[in-house]
Amino acid sequence: MALFTERLHEAGKDIWKKMLSHEFLQMTYKQEISDEVFAQWVRQDYIFVREAIPFIAFITGRAPLTLRSQLANIIGMLVKELGMFEEMAEEHGISLENINPAPTCHAYMQYLYSTANICPIEESFTVLYAAEKAYYDSWKTVKENLKAESKWQRFIDYWSSEDFEAYVKWIASELNKLAEGLPEDRLKKMEEHYITTGRYEYIFWSMAQTSEKWPV
Amino acid sequence: MALFTERLHEAGKDIWKKMLSHEFLQMTYKQEISDEVFAQWVRQDYIFVREAIPFIAFITGRAPLTLRSQLANIIGMLVKELGMFEEMAEEHGISLENINPAPTCHAYMQYLYSTANICPIEESFTVLYAAEKAYYDSWKTVKENLKAESKWQRFIDYWSSEDFEAYVKWIASELNKLAEGLPEDRLKKMEEHYITTGRYEYIFWSMAQTSEKWPV
Amino acid sequence: MALFTERLHEAGKDIWKKMLSHEFLQMTYKQEISDEVFAQWVRQDYIFVREAIPFIAFITGRAPLTLRSQLANIIGMLVKELGMFEEMAEEHGISLENINPAPTCHAYMQYLYSTANICPIEESFTVLYAAEKAYYDSWKTVKENLKAESKWQRFIDYWSSEDFEAYVKWIASELNKLAEGLPEDRLKKMEEHYITTGRYEYIFWSMAQTSEKWPV
Amino acid sequence: MALFTERLHEAGKDIWKKMLSHEFLQMTYKQEISDEVFAQWVRQDYIFVREAIPFIAFITGRAPLTLRSQLANIIGMLVKELGMFEEMAEEHGISLENINPAPTCHAYMQYLYSTANICPIEESFTVLYAAEKAYYDSWKTVKENLKAESKWQRFIDYWSSEDFEAYVKWIASELNKLAEGLPEDRLKKMEEHYITTGRYEYIFWSMAQTSEKWPV
Repeated sequence: MALFTERLHEAGKDIWKKMLSHEFLQMTYKQEISDEVFAQWVRQDYIFVREAIPFIAFITGRAPLTLRSQLANIIGMLVKELGMFEEMAEEHGISLENINPAPTCHAYMQYLYSTANICPIEESFTVLYAAEKAYYDSWKTVKENLKAESKWQRFIDYWSSEDFEAYVKWIASELNKLAEGLPEDRLKKMEEHYITTGRYEYIFWSMAQTSEKWPV
Repeated sequence: MALFTERLHEAGKDIWKKMLSHEFLQMTYKQEISDEVFAQWVRQDYIFVREAIPFIAFITGRAPLTLRSQLANIIGMLVKELGMFEEMAEEHGISLENINPAPTCHAYMQYLYSTANICPIEESFTVLYAAEKAYYDSWKTVKENLKAESKWQRFIDYWSSEDFEAYVKWIASELNKLAEGLPEDRLKKMEEHYITTGRYEYIFWSMAQTSEKWPV
Repeated sequence: MALFTERLHEAGKDIWKKMLSHEFLQMTYKQEISDEVFAQWVRQDYIFVREAIPFIAFITGRAPLTLRSQLANIIGMLVKELGMFEEMAEEHGISLENINPAPTCHAYMQYLYSTANICPIEESFTVLYAAEKAYYDSWKTVKENLKAESKWQRFIDYWSSEDFEAYVKWIASELNKLAEGLPEDRLKKMEEHYITTGRYEYIFWSMAQTSEKWPV
Repeated sequence: MALFTERLHEAGKDIWKKMLSHEFLQMTYKQEISDEVFAQWVRQDYIFVREAIPFIAFITGRAPLTLRSQLANIIGMLVKELGMFEEMAEEHGISLENINPAPTCHAYMQYLYSTANICPIEESFTVLYAAEKAYYDSWKTVKENLKAESKWQRFIDYWSSEDFEAYVKWIASELNKLAEGLPEDRLKKMEEHYITTGRYEYIFWSMAQTSEKWPV
């Protein structure tokens, strides 16, 4: 029988294709991205990673016993990611003080929180999978297309690393277990979350690309 | 001492000013709005009202004893609002079948859910106040500027009615009680929620105006 | 195929048997129960019904669209039940002022809240079913064994009524739909909740019977 | 101005006095406790520590930014505690397989979960404080009254250690900050949680002492 994650990949194929050819990623690997545009992404993703900690915490609280300590470890991983952001920001003169989420960053965070608090574990786990897979795929694409060392190399290397790939594969394998034997209406909901997360990932790149701001 | 809601109104002054002169509202009272644009609002607001029921339910579960039954009544009110949408949609040939939230509608719903599940009651109550006040003020503005009967009169009358005004004033008075004696850092958070909700209300009109869709 | 509720009834058979022959119920239908013991139940169940409102609200917020308005109606039903308690308390000189949950009442409430907030909808719905079925079965047993009009007749009639029976059957039918197609590990969890709720129902009668108090 | 924790200690004085002279603790330091009674505590507290992880996770998700990573560290601490239980259980031939929460353990866990999901952060933080302080005070009492090395020395040393004391003091200092400037009705609720947690701690010792079981 096909793995459930393969069904998800199929369902998200078009979104993923557009995501991986997003202008932000292309300009990053062509090294044509302006510092200010990249800095906008750094600031917003810093907020996002920081706010992903409650998301993981809410999932941890509802997860089966067997997943709890591994989920709790993700929080430690996110704390380390924040350190990477802080060091890269300092190195490149990007201030992380007094930053606030742009509309898309805010919306995406709310989606994580509400899903983790309201939906059954297999759905919030799907969101986690989609978000982390999107990052792995996106930065892997950047890495593979890069012609020379980037000033943002540390970010590129981090999310395209074998460690990160292994982590995404671990989520996939746990997700497949969670999906096992679920009836179609439950699987359908998981698929919808995969799609929705992919969409948020896409518009997150656009938010960075356009330096999106609240209109009022 | 000034009421806390007055502080909120002051903090949200600029957003409210822009909201009340939003093109969608202007075109509605000038009766220049196209049926398709208005229908987009009908569909999205129908989803939004429907999804506001869980929001009220989550607040009800965390509310002080004295507010519980009145909050539960709001659910009944929302069920009636849905009936109004269904009747108006039928009357004007707008299908409510197979409709899905546009990005801004989706984001706003997530914000309601996550706030109601994560934040203390005075914060989710602030969101409720801001959302309902925005509707009263917006439709009252439409009503006051309308020169002749609108084909959407029933919506206009509903949210600008004395009943709805009394309901918004009740929320205001309960919110002022909830704010009583809270330290500045808590009041500040409530103010931020008022601002954020105002922003979502504003972009909700824009979503309707532009027939916003997911880009992928 | 057997209905899932039949599996639950089978799993809870022993607990239900002991519950329905609990001394509290026997003494009630033999009309040997002291006013003070019954008053203890009145006070604690009044608290319990009042605190069941948040439980239903939390379920409502997570329920499928099709169940939302019916679930919201249960809140109205509970508000009416509270009125019955208040009238009966007044009639029989039982004060409902300054009452606090005894340990078992407190524990049971916490179980409702945590289940509704943490567990998937089919599990909290199972708890709702078990609790309401326990009441129907218990008071029906009292009614059937009663030789003469009881001074607590109104309570007895309320939970053994055809209306209440229909309500319990509606929960059963929705629960069977929610269980449809779920894999065994999910059904097992539901069964565990049915057992646990039955146990809490049993010790709730004991709490009343023994006028349980916090030891410190 | 007096620290808020001092107000809590005053409010919980009587409960704490009875807790610290609980027969379970006395028998433990007099070395008169039977292996089976102590094993009952080991099994139930193992469950409790394991289930405290979701409690901490739910708090982490709602905590202010400044507390998040320290709260997340508590999860790591609990995982280590579980290891201590497993080693001690193995050493003393206590099986941790197929164990289930006794009524009081179950109730206390539900109280943690519902508080962390429903109540504002200062209330769930109060529960955390009361629970950890109860353990420090209880095991410190055992340690101080012990005449000779106990076969359960490792547990005794762990919760009466300077490290654990420092951790409890850290919670106290953060709790005092959270309480700062809150109005009396909010402080009163925190006090009630302190009392309730103290009561659960007391009956938890009784549960172990009496090898409490579900009556049905």
